[in-house]
Amino acid sequence: MKSEIIAVGSEMLTPFRQDTNSLYLTEKLNEIGMTVAFKTIVGDRRKDLVGAIRTALARTDILIVMGGLGPTEDDLTREAVAEALSLVLRRDASQVAALHARAATWRMPMPENNLKQADILAGAVILSNPNGSAPGQWLDTTFSGYRKLIMLIPGPPNECRPLFDTECLPRLGAVLPARFIAKRILRAAMIPESQADKLLAPIYTTYTDVETTILAHMGDIQLTLLCSKSSLEAAKQRVDELAGRMEEALDDWLYSSEGESLEQIVLYYLGLRQSTLAVAESCTGGMVSQRITAVPGSSRSFLGGAVVYSNELKTTFADVPPALIERYGAVSSEVATALAEGIRKRTGATLGLAITGIAGPTGGTEGKPVGLVHFAVSDGQKTDIVERNFRGARDRVREWATQQALDLIRRRLM
Amino acid sequence: MKSEIIAVGSEMLTPFRQDTNSLYLTEKLNEIGMTVAFKTIVGDRRKDLVGAIRTALARTDILIVMGGLGPTEDDLTREAVAEALSLVLRRDASQVAALHARAATWRMPMPENNLKQADILAGAVILSNPNGSAPGQWLDTTFSGYRKLIMLIPGPPNECRPLFDTECLPRLGAVLPARFIAKRILRAAMIPESQADKLLAPIYTTYTDVETTILAHMGDIQLTLLCSKSSLEAAKQRVDELAGRMEEALDDWLYSSEGESLEQIVLYYLGLRQSTLAVAESCTGGMVSQRITAVPGSSRSFLGGAVVYSNELKTTFADVPPALIERYGAVSSEVATALAEGIRKRTGATLGLAITGIAGPTGGTEGKPVGLVHFAVSDGQKTDIVERNFRGARDRVREWATQQALDLIRRRLM
Repeated sequence: MKSEIIAVGSEMLTPFRQDTNSLYLTEKLNEIGMTVAFKTIVGDRRKDLVGAIRTALARTDILIVMGGLGPTEDDLTREAVAEALSLVLRRDASQVAALHARAATWRMPMPENNLKQADILAGAVILSNPNGSAPGQWLDTTFSGYRKLIMLIPGPPNECRPLFDTECLPRLGAVLPARFIAKRILRAAMIPESQADKLLAPIYTTYTDVETTILAHMGDIQLTLLCSKSSLEAAKQRVDELAGRMEEALDDWLYSSEGESLEQIVLYYLGLRQSTLAVAESCTGGMVSQRITAVPGSSRSFLGGAVVYSNELKTTFADVPPALIERYGAVSSEVATALAEGIRKRTGATLGLAITGIAGPTGGTEGKPVGLVHFAVSDGQKTDIVERNFRGARDRVREWATQQALDLIRRRLM
Repeated sequence: MKSEIIAVGSEMLTPFRQDTNSLYLTEKLNEIGMTVAFKTIVGDRRKDLVGAIRTALARTDILIVMGGLGPTEDDLTREAVAEALSLVLRRDASQVAALHARAATWRMPMPENNLKQADILAGAVILSNPNGSAPGQWLDTTFSGYRKLIMLIPGPPNECRPLFDTECLPRLGAVLPARFIAKRILRAAMIPESQADKLLAPIYTTYTDVETTILAHMGDIQLTLLCSKSSLEAAKQRVDELAGRMEEALDDWLYSSEGESLEQIVLYYLGLRQSTLAVAESCTGGMVSQRITAVPGSSRSFLGGAVVYSNELKTTFADVPPALIERYGAVSSEVATALAEGIRKRTGATLGLAITGIAGPTGGTEGKPVGLVHFAVSDGQKTDIVERNFRGARDRVREWATQQALDLIRRRLM
């Protein structure tokens, strides 16, 4: 069965706003074995909306219309669906009462216009929306002689997503043939995309019953495996078998078997080894620390560190001898090593990590071009160093370098 | 004239990929006075694509079809447009030669399939694509008796965007009635959204010929003013007049009159005052440093700083007396003040900035709840302090705190 998502709202036809709910809905639909065939974005114009709804019903079986359910004049989804299907809207007494009760709780006046949120399509089931004033609607109907399922759901993400999960998914599950879905997410770091494809394509292409999606972004590769079968056991067995073969092929590029982020894995290993980490960052300017501290509870293993943007601060905060910088330059494996060891000693951490490089756009030389970055990790006994030459603009160099730094510490801890 | 953008590619119907090119194209279209009425996302299925193209031509005058121009079997845009309009495709000899030349440069073999990229719609103009192998196409034609402009452009952003700018925009400009567009972007920090609206709505609603868009995100408000007139002078005059009134109303909430980011403005003022900055971050964990160092050339005014995640590091890197932390707690205006002054002295910067707070989800107490953040900025003579209580999840608290920290330093420098 084909489905379409229509996102309603003129703001999504500006350069400033994008529909993101549909990514969430698509993930949930895929998990019950449904695919999305079309997405349409349409403004708050009744004629456009009626046309888009009719087009969708002519080409798909399941239609989700998102947004346009509020109380303002611009909110036209109810009226447009009614017109597209030649249905009447009736004002629901229990919904009117609920709107009055809501206004009373908030001590707000209740303009007459607000009551249009209680207008329900003939034959529709009301979908409860605990996070907002406009309920959703579920309609099991026919269009040009074919059965169609239509859902009207509110646009704000904090209303749309829970309502879809609790009110729509179970109803869709009851209509669809019983299917069980197994899902696994594998992640790997710093493996070149072409190499990953060369390693993995011969494997996953033989599993035609498992849908494999590969997403590559700045040194991070995420593989999503999805299998739908008539029993959960059968689905799990296929996904796990394929995951096992891919894990083997990815070898130590693989860092996560259940979708965890690289920084989560680094913190997991730090906890396991009862180790602590401190970071001295030059060109990444705080990005490594920021990714680590984004994980709740990171303070158990992450002490902090220094953003040593100037040469002087490399000395002030990590005791790098000025003569060493003078001799080898700030961007060198020697300075990276001294930085890692210096920040470790200063903070008393088990491990010190250092990043020093040239993010660009200026500052490059023939011998040390923009994109050159040195990394070091030290425990006082042994220092691992890596040198990389990233391509692209400043933000790309910084993002790649952050990923490489986290991967270096992961490999050290593994 | 109404326009529609069709983004072609099954990957954009997964939970993992989103069309972002259309935001760029929309901005460029708006700047020449055109609006986008519909956006459609369709997979790599010929029947779906032909249907989507016909639907678009029936409801709009200008159609941009993006993606599906590559060499693989999945790339069906050329064939689908030909079918939808009953046009023939002819293989263009000069394009075939260009493809061969390209393959030779890259020392790549030239599979027969690749040549389909040289297939041009009858009557179409070839749009040069210096960043990729598939050219774009421009078609000025009729559909059901109405004139239609159709553009086929490649999907990869680094091909799509320059090709659209150099090949499509001038052609659209020549077709459209001569209009001149003036644009201004104003930005303000940390003003509550409702207060901004209360201040600004009475002003901008009286300028019905200027389109004002308000975008609010975590303590940042961006106002885009767009006006289209038959002379550039007239358009500029209206936009500048409205901008002037809004600037006055926003008073010192306003930080940018030309769209610069908050961190750019901070760096601009630091340069103007010949001042340098160092930062000690606790709960923001590197986010302030990261935003500042994202700006090219930031090393001229930004020395660096410390991520003082643990209490010990607040002493190690910024000489905060342990007794002060013991007495007032790490999250206090006293410790924020000591941190700001400590990091300033240690680094030799003109100004020291400090952030200490509770990002959550745990670590809050009744007296010091999750979301409480103290800020301080010091030049050794005078310290400005701010206390804020942000709501929401960890990443929200951190993002708001980062914005507040940058705004505090801006206000100090102004």
